[in-house]
Amino acid sequence: MATNDALNKKTEDKQCAKDARVCVPNPHLKKMKDDILYHFALGTSTHDFPALFGDIKFVCVGGSPSRMKTFITYIAELLDIGNPGYDYPNICAGTDRYAMYKAGPILSVSHGMGIPSIAIMLHELIKLLYHAKCSNVTIIRIGTSGGIGLTPGSVVITKQAVDATFKPQFEQIILGKSVIRSTYLDEKLTEDLMECAKELDQFNTVIGNTLCTLDFYEGQARLDGAICTYTEEEKMQYLKEAHMTGVRNIEMESSVFAAMCNLSGLKGNVI
Amino acid sequence: MATNDALNKKTEDKQCAKDARVCVPNPHLKKMKDDILYHFALGTSTHDFPALFGDIKFVCVGGSPSRMKTFITYIAELLDIGNPGYDYPNICAGTDRYAMYKAGPILSVSHGMGIPSIAIMLHELIKLLYHAKCSNVTIIRIGTSGGIGLTPGSVVITKQAVDATFKPQFEQIILGKSVIRSTYLDEKLTEDLMECAKELDQFNTVIGNTLCTLDFYEGQARLDGAICTYTEEEKMQYLKEAHMTGVRNIEMESSVFAAMCNLSGLKGNVI
Repeated sequence: MATNDALNKKTEDKQCAKDARVCVPNPHLKKMKDDILYHFALGTSTHDFPALFGDIKFVCVGGSPSRMKTFITYIAELLDIGNPGYDYPNICAGTDRYAMYKAGPILSVSHGMGIPSIAIMLHELIKLLYHAKCSNVTIIRIGTSGGIGLTPGSVVITKQAVDATFKPQFEQIILGKSVIRSTYLDEKLTEDLMECAKELDQFNTVIGNTLCTLDFYEGQARLDGAICTYTEEEKMQYLKEAHMTGVRNIEMESSVFAAMCNLSGLKGNVI
Repeated sequence: MATNDALNKKTEDKQCAKDARVCVPNPHLKKMKDDILYHFALGTSTHDFPALFGDIKFVCVGGSPSRMKTFITYIAELLDIGNPGYDYPNICAGTDRYAMYKAGPILSVSHGMGIPSIAIMLHELIKLLYHAKCSNVTIIRIGTSGGIGLTPGSVVITKQAVDATFKPQFEQIILGKSVIRSTYLDEKLTEDLMECAKELDQFNTVIGNTLCTLDFYEGQARLDGAICTYTEEEKMQYLKEAHMTGVRNIEMESSVFAAMCNLSGLKGNVI
């Protein structure tokens, strides 16, 4: 039996939400002497988080490590921060789980593929921002996705992430029990991003719901996986239903991303 | 409402299971002219699969790309196949999603973290082995895991993968509906591996159930994530229940691994 997460309500009242600081809704953290972010190969006793990360205002995350390096190089040049031609070092060089790059107030982090992979990264990223005493942080997931009813190359700004039954919720299993969390994204950020897209006028851009699946092949109704038990007609029927409920693209990370942004006071969106 | 997967029964009757060939329970594949394994950057029209991979008898998979390179170097030296000191090239160099290395009949492939990430890899690996006309293939997932009631450094050979409620099943969502798949692993292989462990006599080795979670922090009852809503007592209670049902370790990939081995006729285990 699923229950709604009490944290959704509580977070709104939290002091850290009021002064725009990043929240960690975990009372155990305060009792810990040292916090090791295993999958970043960083720790509070070995790294000075406020000095290294205290100025961060924007975090961009995406699946592939090489793309996140390309992104930091591109954005630093575009915004004229950092030296042209600089070879940005991987801050997480001590591990090959994730890659992380920084230019001024912008952090660029890879998250691999799928909900569990991005969730590990987000747990450790939220703690990193908390230990660094960051405030007013905006986080944007950028990535490729499959469009529904759109011309190829279109950009989708996510209004809300939905599950395989098109509900705006993420199911987190805690101690063997199902807990339901909200996957709405920051409305103001969605509007601001749409304004930017209009100003740029470079890509067909829409605001829509994003279907977040646990699987790339069977989960997204593809016919070309190793295993497939449905017909092309059933596939098309499912995608039509998705479109009718407002889904405009499909990917594999947005729901837990939205849920964790909501719980930690991060303004987030998926593009 | 969840349904049992009809494929579980059907696969047993399949010809490819009888002659030990790798199965692809997907009728659509036969109609495809060209099959692109997107996340390996390999395709049937650009690569000669039987020539490249036809001799494969063993596949070892693990999360980290660098570890899988270390593994192929180690195993090739141990078995005296390939040249000592050889720098094994990454067969999937065209992408940074996964890394793949080969030495004689052994393939070593990384799969990232979590069920969705390993599932994408397995869909494409099973198709690779099928296109290469491989037969009698054994696949073993090797990786770190959290032990329950064991001395650190122990080795667990998985009898069956279980979900967060300790049931030997994997829930696959297909077209928005829940389908339940069996997660038993090859019994003979489990016994053979235990025999090897006894002969080696290097590590404390046990056969046990493996708890497969969708999340590393809240999913595994950890107290040090960014979000935590339970007490230390509740955590210990959950882990005790797991131990009582036969769980000896926790990781994040075994259930879909077992389910997909069963459906494709691969003998598989998790260590």
